[in-house]
Amino acid sequence: MASMLKGIAASNGIAIAKAYRLIEPDLTVQKQTITAPAEETARFQEAVNVSKSELQAIRDNAEKQLGPDKAAIFDAHLLVLSDPELLGPIEDKIQNEQVNAEFALKETADMFVMMFEQMDNEYMKERAADIRDVTKRVLAHLLGVQIPNPSMISEEVIIIAEDLTPSDTAQLNRTYVKGFTTNIGGRTSHSAIMARSMEIPAVVGTKEATESIQNGDLVIVDGINGEVHINPTPELVQKYEQEHAAYEEQKAEWAKLVNEKTVSADGRHVELAANIGTPKDLEGVKNNGGEAVGLYRTEFLYMGRDQLPTEDEQFDAYKAVLEGMEGKPVVVRTLDIGGDKELPYLDLPKEMNPFLGFRAIRLCLEEQDIFRTQLRALLRASKYGNLKIMFPMIATLDEFRQAKAILEEEKQALLNSGVEVAERIETGIMVEIPSTAVMADTFAKEVDFFSIGTNDLIQYTMAADRMNERVSYLYQPYNPAILRLVKMVIDAAHKEGKWAGMCGEMAGDETAIPLLLGLGLDEFSMSATSILRARSLIKRLSQPEMEQLANEVLTMRTAEEVVQAVQSAVTK
Amino acid sequence: MASMLKGIAASNGIAIAKAYRLIEPDLTVQKQTITAPAEETARFQEAVNVSKSELQAIRDNAEKQLGPDKAAIFDAHLLVLSDPELLGPIEDKIQNEQVNAEFALKETADMFVMMFEQMDNEYMKERAADIRDVTKRVLAHLLGVQIPNPSMISEEVIIIAEDLTPSDTAQLNRTYVKGFTTNIGGRTSHSAIMARSMEIPAVVGTKEATESIQNGDLVIVDGINGEVHINPTPELVQKYEQEHAAYEEQKAEWAKLVNEKTVSADGRHVELAANIGTPKDLEGVKNNGGEAVGLYRTEFLYMGRDQLPTEDEQFDAYKAVLEGMEGKPVVVRTLDIGGDKELPYLDLPKEMNPFLGFRAIRLCLEEQDIFRTQLRALLRASKYGNLKIMFPMIATLDEFRQAKAILEEEKQALLNSGVEVAERIETGIMVEIPSTAVMADTFAKEVDFFSIGTNDLIQYTMAADRMNERVSYLYQPYNPAILRLVKMVIDAAHKEGKWAGMCGEMAGDETAIPLLLGLGLDEFSMSATSILRARSLIKRLSQPEMEQLANEVLTMRTAEEVVQAVQSAVTK
Repeated sequence: MASMLKGIAASNGIAIAKAYRLIEPDLTVQKQTITAPAEETARFQEAVNVSKSELQAIRDNAEKQLGPDKAAIFDAHLLVLSDPELLGPIEDKIQNEQVNAEFALKETADMFVMMFEQMDNEYMKERAADIRDVTKRVLAHLLGVQIPNPSMISEEVIIIAEDLTPSDTAQLNRTYVKGFTTNIGGRTSHSAIMARSMEIPAVVGTKEATESIQNGDLVIVDGINGEVHINPTPELVQKYEQEHAAYEEQKAEWAKLVNEKTVSADGRHVELAANIGTPKDLEGVKNNGGEAVGLYRTEFLYMGRDQLPTEDEQFDAYKAVLEGMEGKPVVVRTLDIGGDKELPYLDLPKEMNPFLGFRAIRLCLEEQDIFRTQLRALLRASKYGNLKIMFPMIATLDEFRQAKAILEEEKQALLNSGVEVAERIETGIMVEIPSTAVMADTFAKEVDFFSIGTNDLIQYTMAADRMNERVSYLYQPYNPAILRLVKMVIDAAHKEGKWAGMCGEMAGDETAIPLLLGLGLDEFSMSATSILRARSLIKRLSQPEMEQLANEVLTMRTAEEVVQAVQSAVTK
Repeated sequence: MASMLKGIAASNGIAIAKAYRLIEPDLTVQKQTITAPAEETARFQEAVNVSKSELQAIRDNAEKQLGPDKAAIFDAHLLVLSDPELLGPIEDKIQNEQVNAEFALKETADMFVMMFEQMDNEYMKERAADIRDVTKRVLAHLLGVQIPNPSMISEEVIIIAEDLTPSDTAQLNRTYVKGFTTNIGGRTSHSAIMARSMEIPAVVGTKEATESIQNGDLVIVDGINGEVHINPTPELVQKYEQEHAAYEEQKAEWAKLVNEKTVSADGRHVELAANIGTPKDLEGVKNNGGEAVGLYRTEFLYMGRDQLPTEDEQFDAYKAVLEGMEGKPVVVRTLDIGGDKELPYLDLPKEMNPFLGFRAIRLCLEEQDIFRTQLRALLRASKYGNLKIMFPMIATLDEFRQAKAILEEEKQALLNSGVEVAERIETGIMVEIPSTAVMADTFAKEVDFFSIGTNDLIQYTMAADRMNERVSYLYQPYNPAILRLVKMVIDAAHKEGKWAGMCGEMAGDETAIPLLLGLGLDEFSMSATSILRARSLIKRLSQPEMEQLANEVLTMRTAEEVVQAVQSAVTK
């Protein structure tokens, strides 16, 4: 039966394919007394054998796709399934205690897992993990439920999941995954950002995708309107196939703008920049015609490792990005950890409200070794391009002055020891805390630029955690309160002859762009994949008309009124 | 040796007394082999006997002070200490395993505790708790450390603690506790609010009170300047005794203002109101000359119980407060739970950032049964006085409109069924979310009044959890950003002929009051115990001078500059 779910449009485009549920099945086990232990043992052995052939296939596929290293883990799993020391006690238990195979397996495996985990020995702990993984697979067969094997996907699919972690998405084969839809998440959740950077249509926050969609259902993901259609009528499929074709055609049109400047219909130039996480992202920036890097998130240098990156490691990364951009501006944000971004090796204290806690510049001003190492690496790299340094989470002028003073100290020390440093490095701040937006006029006298971080600015201004589904209705980029703060920041910058950019999700949003142009924003930094569409949109807009529109919406009372005003003013 | 700690002045006044450490001692036990088991057994028996006589004394004191019911728990503890089934195995262990008494006690007691706890039986679980408590006492004696017995305090003391919970303070005997100082907490922490309502001088957030102060040290708590002096010189004691006397004299002066109006030196009247939690607090409001209740926190009706209060229970409380205030204004805030205030029986989901989560009006608009019950109780009580209803945590106009519509529905339903309701009930909002302050001009067209909740407004505007020590430097009431938002709210109210009050901690703060007067605030709601001092201060201030001062500080760059400007403008 055809049905439809509404969600949040997280990544543009249309995808039509069969559903693939990436969901941990329910493996709860009940103890049951059985009367035919021999049959039960046979049932158990059958489940072991099926699991073995499955693992063998996964292993072979992994070897082919990913190489022998990655295949080795499945060899270990296969060994577990042939180990009489594990299988024997299970079969004995079925026989002697007359219990069902699921229960005998679970009890025995749990005991081994506990035993191995308690040993103070990495090898034994890995064995515990192997046993846990393998047990799941056999249990699933006994219970008649399915365990997903995403690495085995070999036809075009739409992924259905509760949520997708970065490691889930890393496992997905981009050739076959055409789109995805999740129960939770918002436009700024990791899965949404990932979808945009992979250019895969996605709808997140549907609340019930995993409940409503079965494996093999035909699914349409409409990442433009935030709709998911389940087993649609042939007419609907046809309509969407046409939309998909039209969207592809439009993308081809946009691609022609790759080497053009971003100029409004009446000739005002603005800068369209890209947000990046690693030097590897530069390829996307170039392919999409980015005029600058507006936000280089340096956190990724610190993540997925077990100690801080050295000054030289950082220098190499910064130099690569600066050289890669060939003199175009590169705004590097200094370390923004804490909050939802943790570094296990730093051992930060658990906080009751991490988003309101000890993070970013607050942490850097206290842990100055970390901060100074990063600044030295940046200063040394500065001569390879057009570097601008940006401090995150600045709430008071004192904090900016402290950070700036530390930067000056490190610069002087490098110069004194004969190291070359670019003569002029612009130093600016993220405006993502309400106090800083309200005080932008005083900041503008001391900083070189502002970049408005809307993801955080919105959550603090509305006092609503942007990751919390229950208050997601308050994450309102178009609330006039947000637009008024944005205006304060831009006006303050211009009054002092400085520039104002934006590097939050809002900067790439089609409804926001006309307003931001009208408010006078100088630089828009977004996912590289959004740049060409934004350029195409801005080319059609008139600066004076957008100014008038912006002035009108600033006096409106609700976000809904603002959205309506933009929609009726801007012909799509 | 004399020394001094700086902390946060949490409650005014001077206290001088001996230190009493309310601290759990370190009861870590090491296993040791012993050579003389008989002596070790004797040492154990001695510790048991000392514990027994201690418990007997505590028991007798509890019976005298609190009645036989409260004494019974100590009878249970005494029984444990005579139980051969517990003592026998410990002595056997010392004898047979040649281990120290601490280790034998800990191992044996832990085993019993675990055994009793696993039984599905309330009585047995209580026995487990008894054994744990008693074991601690005996262990402390064996280890030569002290366990505090706050109920036995019988001389004047200063309490030294890591932090004080509401239940800690409930146990303290106000006759003997002259002041306290804690390692953690800020001006708006529970312990600070409690100290002000008990009128006990307190300095919180000293970081190291428990490290630096020993039992019996002479301690001066200077709750005016936020200083704690340890073993001061006789000269310093004398100086503080004089200050204490002067402070008491000043309090006597203030007391003369109890029946006066609050009028500035040049004749502008403002309203000094009190924040209350229960009808019992009205006595303090009257004794301190409160002109209104500016904030009735209704949460307390919902706390410390195992189900929601009925409509009639609420009606009784609201009626009592309205009648008690004899026609003076009573601003009742509707339920503000969630965040740091949980109700166990509501089973709210755990949130990653509860201060940015599903709380207050957000919860009430979803759980409408709870909200409607409260509104009906308020509407029914409205005819007994001058009721004003205030909605907390309003972030958007939509939320206010929804809440107001529900209130109107309930009013109409009551009127239809013949229940009398006051003809005019002012309906306003807390302004504690930045978006609402920024949009105050649009809100002012629809609400009857504003009350600025600075505790939350500051934490959201600065993006700093006010309970988190590591970012407490960002809790800046005098940051010009906060003052600008306050001005926006007051100006917006006046432009539409509405009134603006403040019910956060800032309203009673001596540095803030001159600025708030200058900004035009109409109503100041504070701890009842702060009212007379505030009245005395305002009588000395000139409205036009404070207006000029306020205008000056709005253009300043940092909180420090603002504080200096106020201090030099206002003669203390």
